[in-house]
Amino acid sequence: MAQTRILPPADNAYQYPLLIKQLLLSGPRYSPDQEIVYANRSKYTYTDLVERIHRLANALTDAGVKPGDTVAVMDWDTPRYLECFFAVPMIGAVLHTINVRLSPDQIVYTMNHAEDDVVLVHDDFLPILESVKGEIKTVKTYIQLTDEASAKPAQLATAGEYEAMLASAKTEFDFPDFDENSIATTFYTTGTTGNPKGVYFSHRQLVLHTMAMTGSLSVHDEMPLLRSSSVYMPVTPMFHVHAWGVPYAATMMGIKQVYPGRYEPELLVDLLKEHKVTFSHCVPTIMQMMMGTESIKTADLSNWHVLIGGSALTKGLCDAGAKLGIHMYTAYGMSETCPLLSATHLTPEDMELPLEQQTAKRVKTGIAAPMVELEIVDPDGKPVPHDGEAKGEVVARAPWLTQSYFKEKEKGEELWQGGWLHTGDVASMEPDHTLVIKDRIKDVIKTGGEWLSSLDLENLISQHPAVAGAAVVGVPDEKWGERPHALVTLKPGEEASLEDIQNHLKQFVDSGEINKWAIPEQMDFVEDIPKTSVGKINKKLIRDQLK
Amino acid sequence: MAQTRILPPADNAYQYPLLIKQLLLSGPRYSPDQEIVYANRSKYTYTDLVERIHRLANALTDAGVKPGDTVAVMDWDTPRYLECFFAVPMIGAVLHTINVRLSPDQIVYTMNHAEDDVVLVHDDFLPILESVKGEIKTVKTYIQLTDEASAKPAQLATAGEYEAMLASAKTEFDFPDFDENSIATTFYTTGTTGNPKGVYFSHRQLVLHTMAMTGSLSVHDEMPLLRSSSVYMPVTPMFHVHAWGVPYAATMMGIKQVYPGRYEPELLVDLLKEHKVTFSHCVPTIMQMMMGTESIKTADLSNWHVLIGGSALTKGLCDAGAKLGIHMYTAYGMSETCPLLSATHLTPEDMELPLEQQTAKRVKTGIAAPMVELEIVDPDGKPVPHDGEAKGEVVARAPWLTQSYFKEKEKGEELWQGGWLHTGDVASMEPDHTLVIKDRIKDVIKTGGEWLSSLDLENLISQHPAVAGAAVVGVPDEKWGERPHALVTLKPGEEASLEDIQNHLKQFVDSGEINKWAIPEQMDFVEDIPKTSVGKINKKLIRDQLK
Repeated sequence: MAQTRILPPADNAYQYPLLIKQLLLSGPRYSPDQEIVYANRSKYTYTDLVERIHRLANALTDAGVKPGDTVAVMDWDTPRYLECFFAVPMIGAVLHTINVRLSPDQIVYTMNHAEDDVVLVHDDFLPILESVKGEIKTVKTYIQLTDEASAKPAQLATAGEYEAMLASAKTEFDFPDFDENSIATTFYTTGTTGNPKGVYFSHRQLVLHTMAMTGSLSVHDEMPLLRSSSVYMPVTPMFHVHAWGVPYAATMMGIKQVYPGRYEPELLVDLLKEHKVTFSHCVPTIMQMMMGTESIKTADLSNWHVLIGGSALTKGLCDAGAKLGIHMYTAYGMSETCPLLSATHLTPEDMELPLEQQTAKRVKTGIAAPMVELEIVDPDGKPVPHDGEAKGEVVARAPWLTQSYFKEKEKGEELWQGGWLHTGDVASMEPDHTLVIKDRIKDVIKTGGEWLSSLDLENLISQHPAVAGAAVVGVPDEKWGERPHALVTLKPGEEASLEDIQNHLKQFVDSGEINKWAIPEQMDFVEDIPKTSVGKINKKLIRDQLK
Repeated sequence: MAQTRILPPADNAYQYPLLIKQLLLSGPRYSPDQEIVYANRSKYTYTDLVERIHRLANALTDAGVKPGDTVAVMDWDTPRYLECFFAVPMIGAVLHTINVRLSPDQIVYTMNHAEDDVVLVHDDFLPILESVKGEIKTVKTYIQLTDEASAKPAQLATAGEYEAMLASAKTEFDFPDFDENSIATTFYTTGTTGNPKGVYFSHRQLVLHTMAMTGSLSVHDEMPLLRSSSVYMPVTPMFHVHAWGVPYAATMMGIKQVYPGRYEPELLVDLLKEHKVTFSHCVPTIMQMMMGTESIKTADLSNWHVLIGGSALTKGLCDAGAKLGIHMYTAYGMSETCPLLSATHLTPEDMELPLEQQTAKRVKTGIAAPMVELEIVDPDGKPVPHDGEAKGEVVARAPWLTQSYFKEKEKGEELWQGGWLHTGDVASMEPDHTLVIKDRIKDVIKTGGEWLSSLDLENLISQHPAVAGAAVVGVPDEKWGERPHALVTLKPGEEASLEDIQNHLKQFVDSGEINKWAIPEQMDFVEDIPKTSVGKINKKLIRDQLK
């Protein structure tokens, strides 16, 4: 280590630890009367938010929560959840955001693995817990959440209902200072194999993620996402990577926030219209559902900017959105990365391009965010050229990456190799620093000694006018090692055959985008493509079903 | 300390230290071809900037600079200086930005006190060093900077000329990781009493300051300072609190930067016009000089946003600027605070107000920046009410405050009391969290048991149409303890008497803004008001002269 100069502080000097409580300082100062909306149910101000966070801290403490405890939440996307984002870590406890879309068995697995002490549970999810009641090992206290006048009668003994507890709690809590490396949040990744794995983020990591996100979503005039006049509505769930961390950034800056509760497409579109939402983040599936509603046809969406993540933004979806006025961009990250790694970056010159060429840029994985280092490496960990052609595994460094998997030392050591987090994604890097994800390493189709990107193929298939969606996996083949097999869903009332799709793909062979051997001989036309609990194509399941 | 949960990282996990080298990652990725301009002399791209920083690191290392060494710079505001902002700390050395406006004796004092090892000195400042040559104790190496074809012949033995050294240096430097608490920069505050005091900032502090600044200068639509389409030109010197830290923020985001070299008003206005500068920071004196030029009359300044600091932005200056189209805002901070503490915050409603009422808000000290805690306290350190009336000393916490004064333990302990940095400023806090600085504690006029703000009085006097500037100090008075004494400068060709000014002030007595006893009986009409080396009114000197 270099012998740099480090000086001792004066007596009494405050050595500022980075803590989540500091993210709550500026928003309420800038915009005390700014609104936080809960669907079509209720709204309150930033001043109210601060008071409710103090009340919640008192209520939790009264219920026995201590620093170091784990407090789990099972809720829809609500301002209550936002309150938990702050109050739980601010008292020194760990917030476990439970993925309510997992199976009851997986949910109880994550609760036991995280060693949850307290669970805040919405009426709607109470039956899940009641069904696995005997298997829950560490929970001492349940607190009920409800959207009705009073909570549902529960079989589980509960300490009370959230609103009632807040109402009787004191309005001021003296939030302590502590080590900035204290764990603030944890949640479980939903891999397609094995048990869910716990990732976790410290106060320091979340503060740095929030600060970098605020800058990078605010500064670009070509992508004005987080501005004081923005209206933010999350459309990826709050249990999943803290809704990409945007609620922290929006709160820090005092921006209007709209929480939709349940993800019902008609409701979401109504909220977009009513509150003139300007900024969301979303996965392609939900975006497609929203775009399929009747009510979207009468919405003015020309000021709606949407980061698309989770799965790749396809050209088809981006173009269809643009026809409705929606500005879509790609964001890249994963549970392990808090999540922000990179996002679309448009230059002023890009904005002057015809839409079709803009789309080509918007669907790319984008440019690394501030403070992030991205590299693409070969199996030996050596960087491959940034020529837009060479493929390598994406590895990352940033101040906010999970430092391991909770209680899974070996898996943590697979994740971190040589001081880089290995994403499991395969990408090329263009000379202008734009990352283009090609596939998951395990989904790449190895055919005839070449790597074929299942993602590229899905993209091209979905450009056929009759196609609604596509999934491509590699299936074993005696001659070629693997061959691509496609599942295709068609738009309502549309028809297409294997030959139609193959003919459609031939144009991309002619234009040099793919090789002839990339065209699948095997294709199933299906009603639905299997998805994981977070809406990604479940290729593991598809491969299993095709066996 | 609360018993929170802290988990060990996986083997090989990278624990990201916050280092200045990371501020250089994103700008060149976002905008490789963006320009960095040196007045009307030269320009280059962000890609060039990165290469030049690598070359400079090699050149310095070749000249013997090691981690922990101190490298001082005496230069005008140039892209060279920006290169030093990065390269010197990035190799683990400390950058000492010498205040070239100090007297030669003070300069050599700061050089010896900081223990400078290497000095980069511009031709124009060589005579200063040569005049005190025998007193310089620690410098081993001098490097010359020039704007001519070759450097001036020097009496001091020099290691070479900057451009020549860069030209022959290698293009790649492997910047090391080290402790984020390593000191990155140091410089000396210019108090009116005693020797200059050294403040210092660590890599961690500068990274956090940059990240918070980027968010807070980007996000507000009512104050759009730092945006990707901005053109930034500093108009406070780079030796003074790293030009308020904005060069780091602008570089992180890949924004066009224009460095003016010398602060010649006509040159500054020409650069504003030529490069369509949108964002600057400035002290009132220089702004007044720019506004006094002929060429400004033909400039379109309607897109020029200026943070005013150093001294208070007066209503007179703000209004006069607005007539030229200039958007002025107040920024508050000091050498000890890196400097950002607070800035004007306008709401959308404010923007709809008549200009005069906007001015009233723009001249206030503003709202604390993200991550900053500001409080106003009585002499016992207890907070006083936030009612816009009660006055107290401003105390601060933020992640980027100097932790002491270099080698001045006792002064550091005066600065830090009870875990708060004491600014020495007296202010009130309005219920909407707006800070309003009233005075320096030592400049407050204690008359008849009341505190009278010298700053308020200067403001009101300067609203008289004939007045160009005013300074008010307290002078001893047998009956009242102290009485205000004003120095007044008049605009060219204008006249005013003591009675005229007193009559002008009476309207503010009638409107309740000041008490009758605030009107000074003593007033001198002078050619110039004494200023310090950084352009602040030198009240110490005025008081001494009046004795």
